[in-house]
Amino acid sequence: MTGSMELGERVRALTRRARDSSRALAAAGSAQKNLALEAIAASLEAHSARLVEANARDLERARAAGTSAAMLDRLTLDAKRVRDIAAAVREVVALPDPVGEVTGMWRRPNGILVGRMRIPLGVIGIVYEARPNVTIDAAVLCFKAGNAVVLKGGSDAIESNLALAEVAREAIAAAGLPADVVQLLPFTDRAAVQHLLEAEDDIDVIIPRGGEALIRFVAQHSRIPVIKHYKGVCHVFVDASADVTMARDIVINGKVQRPSVCNSVETVLVHSECAPTMVPVLTAALVAQGVEVRGCPRTRALAPEVRAATEADWPAEFLDLVVAMKVVDGLDDAMAHIERYGSMHTESIVTKDYASAQRFLREVGSSCVMVNASTRFADGNQLGLGAEIGISTTKLHAFGPMGLEELTTRKFIVYGEGQIRG
Amino acid sequence: MTGSMELGERVRALTRRARDSSRALAAAGSAQKNLALEAIAASLEAHSARLVEANARDLERARAAGTSAAMLDRLTLDAKRVRDIAAAVREVVALPDPVGEVTGMWRRPNGILVGRMRIPLGVIGIVYEARPNVTIDAAVLCFKAGNAVVLKGGSDAIESNLALAEVAREAIAAAGLPADVVQLLPFTDRAAVQHLLEAEDDIDVIIPRGGEALIRFVAQHSRIPVIKHYKGVCHVFVDASADVTMARDIVINGKVQRPSVCNSVETVLVHSECAPTMVPVLTAALVAQGVEVRGCPRTRALAPEVRAATEADWPAEFLDLVVAMKVVDGLDDAMAHIERYGSMHTESIVTKDYASAQRFLREVGSSCVMVNASTRFADGNQLGLGAEIGISTTKLHAFGPMGLEELTTRKFIVYGEGQIRG
Repeated sequence: MTGSMELGERVRALTRRARDSSRALAAAGSAQKNLALEAIAASLEAHSARLVEANARDLERARAAGTSAAMLDRLTLDAKRVRDIAAAVREVVALPDPVGEVTGMWRRPNGILVGRMRIPLGVIGIVYEARPNVTIDAAVLCFKAGNAVVLKGGSDAIESNLALAEVAREAIAAAGLPADVVQLLPFTDRAAVQHLLEAEDDIDVIIPRGGEALIRFVAQHSRIPVIKHYKGVCHVFVDASADVTMARDIVINGKVQRPSVCNSVETVLVHSECAPTMVPVLTAALVAQGVEVRGCPRTRALAPEVRAATEADWPAEFLDLVVAMKVVDGLDDAMAHIERYGSMHTESIVTKDYASAQRFLREVGSSCVMVNASTRFADGNQLGLGAEIGISTTKLHAFGPMGLEELTTRKFIVYGEGQIRG
Repeated sequence: MTGSMELGERVRALTRRARDSSRALAAAGSAQKNLALEAIAASLEAHSARLVEANARDLERARAAGTSAAMLDRLTLDAKRVRDIAAAVREVVALPDPVGEVTGMWRRPNGILVGRMRIPLGVIGIVYEARPNVTIDAAVLCFKAGNAVVLKGGSDAIESNLALAEVAREAIAAAGLPADVVQLLPFTDRAAVQHLLEAEDDIDVIIPRGGEALIRFVAQHSRIPVIKHYKGVCHVFVDASADVTMARDIVINGKVQRPSVCNSVETVLVHSECAPTMVPVLTAALVAQGVEVRGCPRTRALAPEVRAATEADWPAEFLDLVVAMKVVDGLDDAMAHIERYGSMHTESIVTKDYASAQRFLREVGSSCVMVNASTRFADGNQLGLGAEIGISTTKLHAFGPMGLEELTTRKFIVYGEGQIRG
């Protein structure tokens, strides 16, 4: 227990430094923050060799441990990838700073002028897995929105992450802001995560980035509010009036363009009125792209080559070239299926019918609801947020893709002239 | 353990009914919701005698248990108080419905039109203490914002609360919406709260309303996100340039108008440059109103009758006719004191200086920051939110007074014309 206590104290010392330095960052103007971000980008490029070297030590350890080729690729930093990370930092420079924005002001009958001003959340904890680029991506988004950040990356990437964080810290200090606003926990012990999740005085919110197991672990052990991103079981509903080509393109794009991500399509729902035409077209197109289709009995009656879906297929996040297909009796039936089996991530209707489109948009409770568009647009960059720190599948604070604005909150401001309450 | 298991199942059955019925309420339009609210108000008045009778049983039990006169008063429902509750419901009818509002739309380069639409949070759990009026106040605010609610009131008021909830449920059913959107847990056992806090599948957010002990209990035991309202240690900073009369009026109003509430003033900070004039005026005015002043050594040098403040007085929430007073060396010193001892609730500066006012508004991180106005305006009604479900002293989701808007979240909506991702 002594070892663990000691680790706890060391974690706490770092979270405390993040908290203590966060006030200076919250008060910094956009120009100064942007200077620091420019310095981070330049410094990443200037220290590319040092970063690649640190990464080589991680890769060596991972290879010795028999890590798979795919995982090694995710872990790798080379000069090109370092340049990409720096380019991403420069994109954040170009984004508008949400801090200080007054989102509205109104005058009360007694004359006080009341408004709401955006302010940083404070200190954000990020718990993530393999890719070292997250160290910089997450740190600079938190930084731009005026927040200190405490990072806990995967142990595989510890040397790379430490080197990246050090480069960022040096650049921030050179720009006249406290280096301590970026903290990377230099511990590979899992207990360090647990200590981080207990630092409720120092950290305002935890954002886990990784697989469902990581997110469940964080949610279960955290005393700090967690923004959760569970799975994406996204649906396309092909309405009776849907254009056949448009439906096919949206289904194929949603399933095939990048099957391993959360906004890819997992279930296609087809209106029974258009099913006789649509099901054969969709299944043929999917099969031609190498997709395995698992269908309900009515789907299979129209496309006998399709394998039978089981109950387990409806709530499944395949993240692979597999899709479930079901014939439904209309909009209400489709929405009931989505409500029952979906994960509140992203759903799209393909339709020519005005009323169906409006009802679907209004009544489906998922974080992104679309008409005649690919579910693959459910992404901060694609939706125009400029960048994305994560996607929230729960409703508190943020729901759906989170940009800079979601890394802030609002306080009330009041301009008075001596008013008192009667 | 069997008894507790059984209780858990009974709690879960009720939370599940709230969840199941919440979808129909989320889809209901403003007109239908307002009809139901009108019906609740009318029904409360029509069943006034039944409510007062149920309350009499609570009062009898409380009297037998030796409850204090003040607590008995808080618990009491009479015909006048029932009319007041009904009037408050009618005020909620008049408020704009936040659900369905699209807060902004923008077109992306590929032509998709992206917007954000307000939707209900879903199901809200409210855990509260003595006053039975909270049963209706909280239920109707949640209802107006399209949320089902699960209420757990104090055991003292169980008969009153059950009768109030039953009247609301009948009226909602009569208006054609599911009665199950209002659930009141009919259990006085504390374990029922614990079971409620574990119903993470059915409840989206918990709002505790009561003292710090209740809030800490809820925060510690909840698996569901909690919106916390800890204490209000509010400050008035009297700047060097402050008008003496305005400073006196704002300090007196903040301390005396209603000392028992969270937005009353607990500490007055006085700029050293104006302290020789200001401290004697403020202390004399406070003492004349029966307030006990506890001062720092510099305060006492200027007002020798003042009792010495101890370290424990600076972070204290007196909630009584007691105030701490400290002479500070200017704006930075005042803001450092607020940062160290405050509770991020509400702070006000009294000043004639433009730059001091702007810096205070920008740099103080509390949920309400005011210039030349009484801290007593930190209240949803006073700030113009129309109503208040609570005040959040933490930053996630909501910070400061929470109105109807804070009982909603936003989803993304996308209007496309067949766009797919390249």
